[in-house]
Amino acid sequence: MAYNITSLTDLVAQFEKLPGIGKKTAQRLAFHILAQPPERAQKFANALVTAREKIHFCSCCQALTDTDICPVCADSERDHSTICVVEDPKDVLAFEKTREYRGLYHVLHGAFSPLDGVGPEQLKIKELMSRLSNTDVKELIMATNLTVEGEATASYISRLAKPLGIKVTRLAYGIPVGGDLEYADEKTLTRALEGRNEI
Amino acid sequence: MAYNITSLTDLVAQFEKLPGIGKKTAQRLAFHILAQPPERAQKFANALVTAREKIHFCSCCQALTDTDICPVCADSERDHSTICVVEDPKDVLAFEKTREYRGLYHVLHGAFSPLDGVGPEQLKIKELMSRLSNTDVKELIMATNLTVEGEATASYISRLAKPLGIKVTRLAYGIPVGGDLEYADEKTLTRALEGRNEI
Repeated sequence: MAYNITSLTDLVAQFEKLPGIGKKTAQRLAFHILAQPPERAQKFANALVTAREKIHFCSCCQALTDTDICPVCADSERDHSTICVVEDPKDVLAFEKTREYRGLYHVLHGAFSPLDGVGPEQLKIKELMSRLSNTDVKELIMATNLTVEGEATASYISRLAKPLGIKVTRLAYGIPVGGDLEYADEKTLTRALEGRNEI
Repeated sequence: MAYNITSLTDLVAQFEKLPGIGKKTAQRLAFHILAQPPERAQKFANALVTAREKIHFCSCCQALTDTDICPVCADSERDHSTICVVEDPKDVLAFEKTREYRGLYHVLHGAFSPLDGVGPEQLKIKELMSRLSNTDVKELIMATNLTVEGEATASYISRLAKPLGIKVTRLAYGIPVGGDLEYADEKTLTRALEGRNEI
């Protein structure tokens, strides 16, 4: 008879399904949970279920929220005439951390990827166009990733928005602040050259 | 108004409490859960609570089990005259993976550590001595870690067991000195079992 504790095996398997967590780490995390008070496991379990149940896409900008409209869209003090278009909900958090951006967002939930069958229909582009026609938007900041997919998506949206008289901009790409020239890759360096400003 | 989703923050915080999981990884794992079907979060939550509720120490060998007596102690085909003494429940899993060891275990749940106030009273030594007096044990294999704490614990137990006429052996070197049993591969562990010496 093998030494097999079903409930432990189950827990290890659940941890192992997480991205970047291997077998050994999964086991270590499971044993950590067993060594904690039962309330800890209960709290963790509640957080998992609550987050998954409550969090959905904002009906306006498609970012994650647990209220009907996300706090950014609901905030009347923010600049509702500027929309920053990003690929992923995580990107919104990254921008919010800067505490500099005061406009709104629109999350596409991906970028064009013909091989995976992702085209305009699979992204939240229809929702973006509806916002552009129904509200007074003056500027779209395209903040999709600097990949072939991200660039293609940005230029597609830009072609749709420009005829509506909306200014479309792209994030500046260049050397990261504090970064060393020596470690910058060719593409970043090329972009930094192209986007150079007079001082 | 800051972009703050309480249930997301809670979930990130729970992941961040796990050993070796930093802020960025915790955020990545939380977003992964949100991107999965709700059943996935529910299953993970159930696994957490079930494991924590059901798993307890075997009343005989103090290893983890979700039955009253663990499968190893309950197995009449195993060699009940040999007990392998380990520090941690994880060590039992490591030995079982070798598929070589056919005796029983005893988990001490630690090793002597005077600075942390861990002495004989804090370890499951009383339970081990009770097994030695009540059952017909012929050999104790000391498989505590090869650290100062593990060696001290092994020699303490050896001094208690020898007067009872029990052969006490120590795992052979082969396990890297200062290394943790948990990380030893199956072959090293098998070698260490085969080459055990009387102490």
